[in-house]
Amino acid sequence: MATRIETDTFGPIEVEASVYWGAQSQRSIGNFKIGWERQPVPVIRALGVIKRAAAETNHALGKLDAGLKDAIVSAAQEVIDGKLDAHFPLVVWQTGSGTQTNMNANEVISNRAIEALGGVMGSKKPVHPNDHVNMSQSSNDTYPTAMHIAAAVQTVQHLLPALRHLHAALAEKAVAWQAIIKIGRTHTQDATPLTLGQEFSGYAQQVENGIFRIEQTLPLLMQLAQGGTAVGTGLNAPVGFAEGVAARIADLTGLPFTSAPNKFEALAAHDALVMTHGALNTVAVSLFKIANDIRFLGSGPRSGLGELALPENEPGSSIMPGKVNPTQCEALTMVCCQVFGNQATLTFAGSQGHFELNVYNPVMAYNFLQSVQLLGDAARSFTDHCVAGIVPRTENIQAALDRSLMLVTALAPKVGYDAAAKIAKTAHRNGTTLRDEAVGGGYVTDAEFDALVRPEKMIAPDPLA
Amino acid sequence: MATRIETDTFGPIEVEASVYWGAQSQRSIGNFKIGWERQPVPVIRALGVIKRAAAETNHALGKLDAGLKDAIVSAAQEVIDGKLDAHFPLVVWQTGSGTQTNMNANEVISNRAIEALGGVMGSKKPVHPNDHVNMSQSSNDTYPTAMHIAAAVQTVQHLLPALRHLHAALAEKAVAWQAIIKIGRTHTQDATPLTLGQEFSGYAQQVENGIFRIEQTLPLLMQLAQGGTAVGTGLNAPVGFAEGVAARIADLTGLPFTSAPNKFEALAAHDALVMTHGALNTVAVSLFKIANDIRFLGSGPRSGLGELALPENEPGSSIMPGKVNPTQCEALTMVCCQVFGNQATLTFAGSQGHFELNVYNPVMAYNFLQSVQLLGDAARSFTDHCVAGIVPRTENIQAALDRSLMLVTALAPKVGYDAAAKIAKTAHRNGTTLRDEAVGGGYVTDAEFDALVRPEKMIAPDPLA
Amino acid sequence: MATRIETDTFGPIEVEASVYWGAQSQRSIGNFKIGWERQPVPVIRALGVIKRAAAETNHALGKLDAGLKDAIVSAAQEVIDGKLDAHFPLVVWQTGSGTQTNMNANEVISNRAIEALGGVMGSKKPVHPNDHVNMSQSSNDTYPTAMHIAAAVQTVQHLLPALRHLHAALAEKAVAWQAIIKIGRTHTQDATPLTLGQEFSGYAQQVENGIFRIEQTLPLLMQLAQGGTAVGTGLNAPVGFAEGVAARIADLTGLPFTSAPNKFEALAAHDALVMTHGALNTVAVSLFKIANDIRFLGSGPRSGLGELALPENEPGSSIMPGKVNPTQCEALTMVCCQVFGNQATLTFAGSQGHFELNVYNPVMAYNFLQSVQLLGDAARSFTDHCVAGIVPRTENIQAALDRSLMLVTALAPKVGYDAAAKIAKTAHRNGTTLRDEAVGGGYVTDAEFDALVRPEKMIAPDPLA
Amino acid sequence: MATRIETDTFGPIEVEASVYWGAQSQRSIGNFKIGWERQPVPVIRALGVIKRAAAETNHALGKLDAGLKDAIVSAAQEVIDGKLDAHFPLVVWQTGSGTQTNMNANEVISNRAIEALGGVMGSKKPVHPNDHVNMSQSSNDTYPTAMHIAAAVQTVQHLLPALRHLHAALAEKAVAWQAIIKIGRTHTQDATPLTLGQEFSGYAQQVENGIFRIEQTLPLLMQLAQGGTAVGTGLNAPVGFAEGVAARIADLTGLPFTSAPNKFEALAAHDALVMTHGALNTVAVSLFKIANDIRFLGSGPRSGLGELALPENEPGSSIMPGKVNPTQCEALTMVCCQVFGNQATLTFAGSQGHFELNVYNPVMAYNFLQSVQLLGDAARSFTDHCVAGIVPRTENIQAALDRSLMLVTALAPKVGYDAAAKIAKTAHRNGTTLRDEAVGGGYVTDAEFDALVRPEKMIAPDPLA
Repeated sequence: MATRIETDTFGPIEVEASVYWGAQSQRSIGNFKIGWERQPVPVIRALGVIKRAAAETNHALGKLDAGLKDAIVSAAQEVIDGKLDAHFPLVVWQTGSGTQTNMNANEVISNRAIEALGGVMGSKKPVHPNDHVNMSQSSNDTYPTAMHIAAAVQTVQHLLPALRHLHAALAEKAVAWQAIIKIGRTHTQDATPLTLGQEFSGYAQQVENGIFRIEQTLPLLMQLAQGGTAVGTGLNAPVGFAEGVAARIADLTGLPFTSAPNKFEALAAHDALVMTHGALNTVAVSLFKIANDIRFLGSGPRSGLGELALPENEPGSSIMPGKVNPTQCEALTMVCCQVFGNQATLTFAGSQGHFELNVYNPVMAYNFLQSVQLLGDAARSFTDHCVAGIVPRTENIQAALDRSLMLVTALAPKVGYDAAAKIAKTAHRNGTTLRDEAVGGGYVTDAEFDALVRPEKMIAPDPLA
Repeated sequence: MATRIETDTFGPIEVEASVYWGAQSQRSIGNFKIGWERQPVPVIRALGVIKRAAAETNHALGKLDAGLKDAIVSAAQEVIDGKLDAHFPLVVWQTGSGTQTNMNANEVISNRAIEALGGVMGSKKPVHPNDHVNMSQSSNDTYPTAMHIAAAVQTVQHLLPALRHLHAALAEKAVAWQAIIKIGRTHTQDATPLTLGQEFSGYAQQVENGIFRIEQTLPLLMQLAQGGTAVGTGLNAPVGFAEGVAARIADLTGLPFTSAPNKFEALAAHDALVMTHGALNTVAVSLFKIANDIRFLGSGPRSGLGELALPENEPGSSIMPGKVNPTQCEALTMVCCQVFGNQATLTFAGSQGHFELNVYNPVMAYNFLQSVQLLGDAARSFTDHCVAGIVPRTENIQAALDRSLMLVTALAPKVGYDAAAKIAKTAHRNGTTLRDEAVGGGYVTDAEFDALVRPEKMIAPDPLA
Repeated sequence: MATRIETDTFGPIEVEASVYWGAQSQRSIGNFKIGWERQPVPVIRALGVIKRAAAETNHALGKLDAGLKDAIVSAAQEVIDGKLDAHFPLVVWQTGSGTQTNMNANEVISNRAIEALGGVMGSKKPVHPNDHVNMSQSSNDTYPTAMHIAAAVQTVQHLLPALRHLHAALAEKAVAWQAIIKIGRTHTQDATPLTLGQEFSGYAQQVENGIFRIEQTLPLLMQLAQGGTAVGTGLNAPVGFAEGVAARIADLTGLPFTSAPNKFEALAAHDALVMTHGALNTVAVSLFKIANDIRFLGSGPRSGLGELALPENEPGSSIMPGKVNPTQCEALTMVCCQVFGNQATLTFAGSQGHFELNVYNPVMAYNFLQSVQLLGDAARSFTDHCVAGIVPRTENIQAALDRSLMLVTALAPKVGYDAAAKIAKTAHRNGTTLRDEAVGGGYVTDAEFDALVRPEKMIAPDPLA
Repeated sequence: MATRIETDTFGPIEVEASVYWGAQSQRSIGNFKIGWERQPVPVIRALGVIKRAAAETNHALGKLDAGLKDAIVSAAQEVIDGKLDAHFPLVVWQTGSGTQTNMNANEVISNRAIEALGGVMGSKKPVHPNDHVNMSQSSNDTYPTAMHIAAAVQTVQHLLPALRHLHAALAEKAVAWQAIIKIGRTHTQDATPLTLGQEFSGYAQQVENGIFRIEQTLPLLMQLAQGGTAVGTGLNAPVGFAEGVAARIADLTGLPFTSAPNKFEALAAHDALVMTHGALNTVAVSLFKIANDIRFLGSGPRSGLGELALPENEPGSSIMPGKVNPTQCEALTMVCCQVFGNQATLTFAGSQGHFELNVYNPVMAYNFLQSVQLLGDAARSFTDHCVAGIVPRTENIQAALDRSLMLVTALAPKVGYDAAAKIAKTAHRNGTTLRDEAVGGGYVTDAEFDALVRPEKMIAPDPLA
């Protein structure tokens, strides 16, 4: 293996010749052999955005000459485009500031720019990783900025469209099934009827609210720490840099990023990640409920509730021939469990900042981005492979409705709660019908029973006479 | 003990003569001897609000005559006023719908109204707990409505004012201490300077953001399930009841409650509680960080960081004479730990709705309201007994600043990152000063050193020449 | 209100004349108006045990004369007996060391002993709260010792018996129902049969394992910090005190408490509480599953799975007459959610010790003891009001078994997995029986079908020919 | 791309010719495009162990002929040896039973065996994935067995050795530094002294206890579900299979696996994973505390506590030249945060079994194994790159000890708590020394002060005269 020598303030170190990274990345590889989880790709891409935007802003403010600026921009664009992903080998479990990954970006861009300019990789000339690529920046503002960019971009581009896709499918069912009357269930027990469309309208509302909740949190998530440099003061950054770089990042990403109004908060706390993940957590709560309901409503095929036929996508058992299972519900609910755990991790990590810096950056970025990826993927998979293909089993639905005793509720305004309860309890004890006991017991006439106990009138408030 | 007989659909049961509750409350006492946690008082009061608003709305819609309405309103007002708290003995750990506590309210109001009208308690005449007090309602919409009312009222009236109180104290310190330059710390290690005011401005920003985050979630929390009755359809409630009762509740509480647009969602899910608690959780994350910082900055008095003198409120040790501890920080961070756990409980419980109902209502109400109470109380206590009385130990602050090596950062733009690192590392190794090594090493002249290494110029971005 | 003056190192303070507590308790009341959660009673009682054991040990080691010893022992015994509970007004949310509650005990015992000896309350003579009641102790070893005593006593005396009670009821059902064959369900879908007794044997095994898991953790929980005094060194305690006091505590409680082998660990960490709660958390996981299953197996009565009839304990709805719900399952699963949250709180708090002390004692004690109380109470309630009275609905069980398609699994060894799958899928599609398709499709003869598809042979491994 | 046709009960499907997997794996790839997390390699290897052990046991019991057995054993051994890892492409987020990954193993082994026997891949002849490779098994017992094998093997082979390695390093420091007296800190405030060795002995004890706690849980983790087949009854497995296969697995792995006494519990619940992870969680609590302490004790270098010099492994800042940070502490505490979240995920998932099966298998395996991997790796990294190289900064330690006021505690037995408090508080207020105030105030003579206030006598209990 051919190598070259890279150096940092700790001295020289050998690096494989074919890679762009430098001494600090190499040291991190050696010092942190922990786990298999690499720094998330969206963070790497966001660092590319920052490095490009910073070079352009430094140039605009007169700190960086055009030649170096162009070289950095060009190399940074390759990071943005994913062409250099292989040169970001570091894991999540490194320094808590993410400094090593920021330096990884500085080193890769420096060496790539040096190469393009015909220089010697590792020489730091003419493009120095710290003095030029990292100009006006610290890891302490850069990595948090990268986290916010990555989190916002993935939320907006990946998760929200998937949730809207799911919402549309649920809303479509709510309309399509608005006339299918079914037994309601509360406490898992038989209750008064509603329509299948109404049931799915509740699911649709949950998802719609979830989208709204996430969107509400985005403005604070789109506030960027960049410009705070080492401790939030902006030392070594020029006046105007923070605002300029935020505007440039907004341009490059197409999202309305702004400069955080207080950089001390932006470095020392990552409350915005905790809060937006609180919205993701709420969405996971919603999706868990929806998937769980659909799994039970689709249970059977012969000895369950059997109200829905879920799409049959694959064999369900290695031993029971012909078995088919609600596997999309299972994948989605497993994802929700992961998100619930990630909420705990983010909460814990977010609370542990000390003084001017929170040093739990990579674990926060990793968990947040995992939740976004998984919820987005699973919402889409669940929509396409489950919700879209659900078919009501109307015969079963009707049978369950017909035999229910809770239609007695419609009699209560007429005969009173106590008498109605007697009717239902007697029918339950005797295994008879409501009509048997209501009419037989002399509470109402047959005609009155017919007029009152009509499921199609039980699915909305009483129109007042 | 004198008793009377109360009845429900399960038959007669003895109740102590002096209490207003009836058969179902009494059964719950017998069946749920679990724990010491009673139904939260704010939920009881909210049930009073609902029962009054429902009676008035039923009357307005022509379903309830004026006499019964007035009797119910009068008794319900006593619940609102806290006069009947002693008649709500049920614990949190009962049926998950809270039906027994809703019936507790129905029974107490019924009996109190019967008493006022000269009737016989337990006779259900002329005011029946189900047919009249619970008219147009189900526990399934009533208890969730009570949860939302209690949660919103306590958040608005108790928590937010306490957070604003804390914010004002922190913001005041940020201004008062804007000229006190101190060493910054990142990774708990010495870093570049900032002012003590800047540090506290970060805390103030966190709290300000937290207030904003909570407020953002309130509109959905203020959507009420009332009118959905048993499963969300509104069965047995008149058209217009949902909107009418929400408007009346808004009047009675002075808060902008609205009727939930989808009652199926409102009964089967409690996502709004999960989401608002996600904001409380974020606030707890912020407060943990702030209290933890203050505890460490105030550590000593002789052998800690010693930058702040915290108010001395009480003796701190039963064995070490004269010891004083940061006890307000400790109480607050313990509260935050409780909130973090409550977040897990709410997340879990919120995900477990089945079909038309979530039956984890009381545990959700209990945890949410505990968080609100504790955060509010602790924020106020921390403000009054700690933040307000903090005094900077300026001598220590200055000494720590003077000996720091990280002022070298101001030399980096002049001499480059690598040379600056050599200066700092040499001084660290030799136990010398930056000036010793920077000037002695020939990197800068004494005059240049004086011009560049000035902490008062290191606390803001560079003005561009 | 009559008052007297109490003093501490901060000076004099007025205290209500009728109470035994002193200056430091009174200061805590004023400084910590946070929440409604008082210090748990089992902690107070445990402090009584410690103060008595310490006085006896100090006397035995020659440090405390007999007269003072007797007075302290007598007053401490009143604390143990619960006679002085009203004199422990402090809340959980105080100093994180619990110093104020330790001083509360010192003050109450001191004043009660002074009173008994004819002295003047508040004079600290002849029994000084620090010099005598707290002799050889610090809050830093005393409160953790009280936590361990309270935790172990409540676990052994309250929780484990309740779990054994539940286990016995489940095991009884497992035997009683060993011949009731029913459809199994995996993925909530129909699967191969088992007996209802087998199903309940799984529940019994879970509880049995849970008891074992808790018991396994007790030895480390029964290690006591007492004797470490301020930082773990044992300063100001005589040699032999740690071992002597632990032995005396073991005598007084009847449990095998020992002296912790390393007092630095015992003060600075509360890992034993975290670990034992990990076992409680596992038990909650088990109980959640059991209660959830029973709720679904008992769903109906007409339109659910309907395999079990749960005891009907109370009316289930304020609007639906005659409705009965699985309320004990609901209370138990809510309790489990609380335990899950408490696990998060304990984990977080347990990790936050600094240097020689963890100052999250009260919140840890409170959450641990709440879990123990709730799990014990709820396990007992669930046993007595639900499990004991469950009756199988054999008609429904038989019907569900008969119509299942998963009995096809018994054909697989004969016809192969692929052919068996075809049989089941065809029957599912056509709405026919397995026999229709298996015999009709020529896979087996009627006689072979009869010989192979016998549920009573499908509930155990194949005996080898 | 060359392809072949594979079939399952859903029909034919194209698969890339070069891979060994079959139809069900291919369907899973198409149906579950969720996330980037593949099934953990230790689970795949464990499936190899199971398939080999099952074939051998089936053969021994007369169900599988020698030729097929040998072919399966040979292919399974390649899975065990990691030669076929590339043929296991499925993600965590699939069916919750892990059926698809069990089928992946069946298909890969079937095709590899067919290939070895000269057959046609995809023909299922002569080695059928279900009828032969999966003989006497269901996914429902196989995947849980694989989880337990993987969890136990990784815990025993990876995690426990790393914890022992850490323990040894801490214990070595405890001995080496037993004579270095330093200031103790409680509530982060100055307290009475102890030795640095004592402080580290507490850390060592925490790790020792953690190892013990994990080991205690292993016997239940080593109980295997195998033999329960579809629902726990053992249908289609021969009598003796469960015990035989467990014994064979124990042989193959060298660990004392046993057959679970109740297979219904073993399929429907994964409490053993939850419980062992409770021990991992406790270990994470311990490690968090240790790493946090070391980070603070090493804070500085000029303006922190400065008692320890941590190894300097790499540059710490991209903007502050010469900065070095406690990065190993940071990586370790981030890992702990991940474990805390994983605990929540496992708790949640573990509680959600329904009836005869818990379908959260893959998410539980993934989180458990991630915790094991990360804790093991991080413990080793922390040991080698931090603990081993820590050097006490004795000058700073001595200075902090000398100026402390809490040495006053040694005067309390002589002058009483109240007088001692006055001495300390006066010295604090006046900025004087204890001696100044104790002797100057007339409490003790100079000689008495010298005799009593001796730190080297304050680090252990008083020997009784």
